[in-house]
Order: sequence, then C-alpha cells, then structure tokens
Amino acid sequence: MAKDLRMGILLDFYGGLLTDKQRLAMDGYYNEDLSLAEIAEEMDISRQGVMAFLRQGEKHLLAFEEKLGLAERFAEINAGLDRMRGIIKAMPQDERCEELLFLIETVSGII
Amino acid sequence: MAKDLRMGILLDFYGGLLTDKQRLAMDGYYNEDLSLAEIAEEMDISRQGVMAFLRQGEKHLLAFEEKLGLAERFAEINAGLDRMRGIIKAMPQDERCEELLFLIETVSGII
Repeated sequence: MAKDLRMGILLDFYGGLLTDKQRLAMDGYYNEDLSLAEIAEEMDISRQGVMAFLRQGEKHLLAFEEKLGLAERFAEINAGLDRMRGIIKAMPQDERCEELLFLIETVSGII
Repeated sequence: MAKDLRMGILLDFYGGLLTDKQRLAMDGYYNEDLSLAEIAEEMDISRQGVMAFLRQGEKHLLAFEEKLGLAERFAEINAGLDRMRGIIKAMPQDERCEELLFLIETVSGII
C-alpha cells in the first residue's frame, strides 16, 4: 500500500467524522508514521484489522473531500497567502509590512 | 421557529453531507428565503414534512460544525483578511498594493 500524503491533510479536516478506531489507525499511520505492526500492537488488533480501518478511513476521507472540497479551498487560500507574503517581503520594510506578515502567519496558522 | 442565520453559512460548508431532501428544504428556507408553504409546494410534501427536514438538516449541520469547526476557521481567516485589507488601504497606493488587494479579494472569494 503506497502512502498517500494527502491523507494526513484530509485527516486534519475531516478526522472528526471518522469512528474512533478509523481515526486512531489513520493518525498512527499518516501523522505519526508508525508501522502497521506498531499500530496493531497499540490498538490490540491484528495487522489485517489495522489495514481494514485504514481502507475504511481513506475511503471516507476521500468521499468527504469529494462532497465538500474544503481541503482544496484551504489549499487555494494558502497559495494566495504565499503570493501575498512574497509581494510584502519585496516591499521596503516598515511597521505596516511587519504587521501584514504577522497577519499572514496568523491566518496560515488557522489553516 | 426563529431563523438562525448561521445555518446559511453552515449549509455552504456542509450541505454536501445532507440528504437531497434535507438540503432542498434547508436551501429554500435559509438561502432562497422561501416560506414553509412555498417549500412544501415545491417539494410536494406537507408543511410538517418540510419542518421535519429542516430540523434534521439543522441538527446535522450543527453536529458537523461541532466536530470539524471549519466554518469557524474560515471566519477567523476572513477576519484576518479584513484587517490586512484595512492596513493596505491606508498605505501609499502603488501597483503592489493593488496586487495585494486583488489577492485579498480572490482569497475572500474562495471562502
């Protein structure tokens, strides 16, 4: 199973809609980078069980994003913020630029 | 039933997770500002039926937001963009300011 790096992002957005076990398996695999064996031990289930929760979790996360598209919207916002950061850094620096850069970091942090 | 204006916003975020009938009733009531009687006629059901779909839809939308909090995150992003817009408009205007304001409008439009 190739690790799909989008899953960590989708988990951040929609993880709250998964079951506890799906979320636990997904979080271990995609965020903590644990092996299937490590997750299996932590959850006290078989590796096959972990695989099943991962497959269910992935399927649900992809379906949520297909229906809502919120991760894509956030990614577009981030791209816009990146362009703004570049423009502001190229300006003669003063207090207003500092405040703008601070606001960009704050907004990026919310995402 | 008092009309809860947050519902229109939550519907924009999470409407894709409602059933077709819940979404149709909610959209008529909160976005198109139709009366219960008008929605009932359009959906070919009773007013009581419309009320039931509205109550289900509202309950689900509030539960999605409680679990995911994405509407609140977008609102915080918008507040940050508003502050940035204010700072940029107070700067001596040049092409870079124009581009920044354009980017802010673009990002706001995504939300």
